[in-house]
Amino acid sequence: MGWQRQEHGPSVQQTVEEALRRMTGEATQFIAAGRTDAGVHALAMSAHVDIERELTPHRLREGLNALVRPHPVSILEVGPVADDWHARFSCVGRRYLYRILDRRAPPALDAGRVWHVAVPLDLDAMQRGAEHLIGRHDFTTFRSAQCQSDSPVKTLDRLDVAKAGDEVYITAAARSFLHHQVRSMVGCLALVGRGQWKPDDMRKALEARDRAALGFNAPPHGLYFVEAVYSEKATND
Amino acid sequence: MGWQRQEHGPSVQQTVEEALRRMTGEATQFIAAGRTDAGVHALAMSAHVDIERELTPHRLREGLNALVRPHPVSILEVGPVADDWHARFSCVGRRYLYRILDRRAPPALDAGRVWHVAVPLDLDAMQRGAEHLIGRHDFTTFRSAQCQSDSPVKTLDRLDVAKAGDEVYITAAARSFLHHQVRSMVGCLALVGRGQWKPDDMRKALEARDRAALGFNAPPHGLYFVEAVYSEKATND
Repeated sequence: MGWQRQEHGPSVQQTVEEALRRMTGEATQFIAAGRTDAGVHALAMSAHVDIERELTPHRLREGLNALVRPHPVSILEVGPVADDWHARFSCVGRRYLYRILDRRAPPALDAGRVWHVAVPLDLDAMQRGAEHLIGRHDFTTFRSAQCQSDSPVKTLDRLDVAKAGDEVYITAAARSFLHHQVRSMVGCLALVGRGQWKPDDMRKALEARDRAALGFNAPPHGLYFVEAVYSEKATND
Repeated sequence: MGWQRQEHGPSVQQTVEEALRRMTGEATQFIAAGRTDAGVHALAMSAHVDIERELTPHRLREGLNALVRPHPVSILEVGPVADDWHARFSCVGRRYLYRILDRRAPPALDAGRVWHVAVPLDLDAMQRGAEHLIGRHDFTTFRSAQCQSDSPVKTLDRLDVAKAGDEVYITAAARSFLHHQVRSMVGCLALVGRGQWKPDDMRKALEARDRAALGFNAPPHGLYFVEAVYSEKATND
């Protein structure tokens, strides 16, 4: 069901919290840099937990990886942090990747891991469309109704569109994103790539500051959380 | 259950043959360049079929892709070939990739798609070990008891060991391979990488021409059939 603990199904948070409870006997909260939706993947999420029990990082990682099986969750690295370090609030940069499989034939091995778009996308138009979103803007158009952010104003540092083989890779980087922002931006870029929107329609959608101006959300299963960035001070304390 | 039609479970061959029968009304055999074992993946297999019904390549591909759902099989390209063209016998080169995830933490997204080796592998030793197998040899040591090849003598054109991030990629290319040959070679290379074998033990195993000299087979789920090569004459006829 994605990152966050849910009533109606397994989540990454619940899986790791239960493994932590079995290792430490403590009921703790596992707090992440970002909460991925159901269907969204993460190549490397950062998260923290407060535990009393003393365990070496090595033992904690090995124990958790044994206990989270057979769920598709893996603890890549474990280390101590300063008391005031917070996976979410100390995070100064987040990077996402969106994978589009752009060919007639549907995916086989990558089913559920790419968005299949069967018509050829105009990469150049998508790149020009993406440029309109770079910088500090009110991203209300690209925000879900459930978004809990205080403000719709965010600074988008990167929105790159590249091609490798029959895949289109869209990389988005910002200090933080609104809920559904990357999927909304990618959905609109796909309209541009299909010729249904002009590149300049991205600017118009942004300036409308209106959810009704949105094209549509790209599906969750093409989205990957790639990296949470922390300032040197926070990670080396 | 892999490529070949089996009594006890679904196969790629059966999935496509049933789709072909539904499209054409004809009971046909779908013949591939190679028959991958259960658990082995294929990024691009070549195969042929003889049908009476006249269909454009486009319509055949689209129809098959609709009918093979929800199985993880995708028809990438369809085209006409000469009557004497045979996916298996006309094939003059086959290429495989073997993916090893070389890190402590188990795979999450790539579970079932890589072989997880939790100890650091010595890449340099593996590369030196691989060189002993290049060329024309009797590969009896690296051949399964079920192998149906007329001769154990094969010419191995490439056996490259490379690293990208925490993955070790082994590429093997030859006109043809014995059954389990790639998995056997990779299993022995992993012994070299772990320091349990010296690079020269690859040569000794090869020269033994004895299945008992084999280290072990790498598991099927790290193996990918990547390409079947045909001579220009065969494909352009």
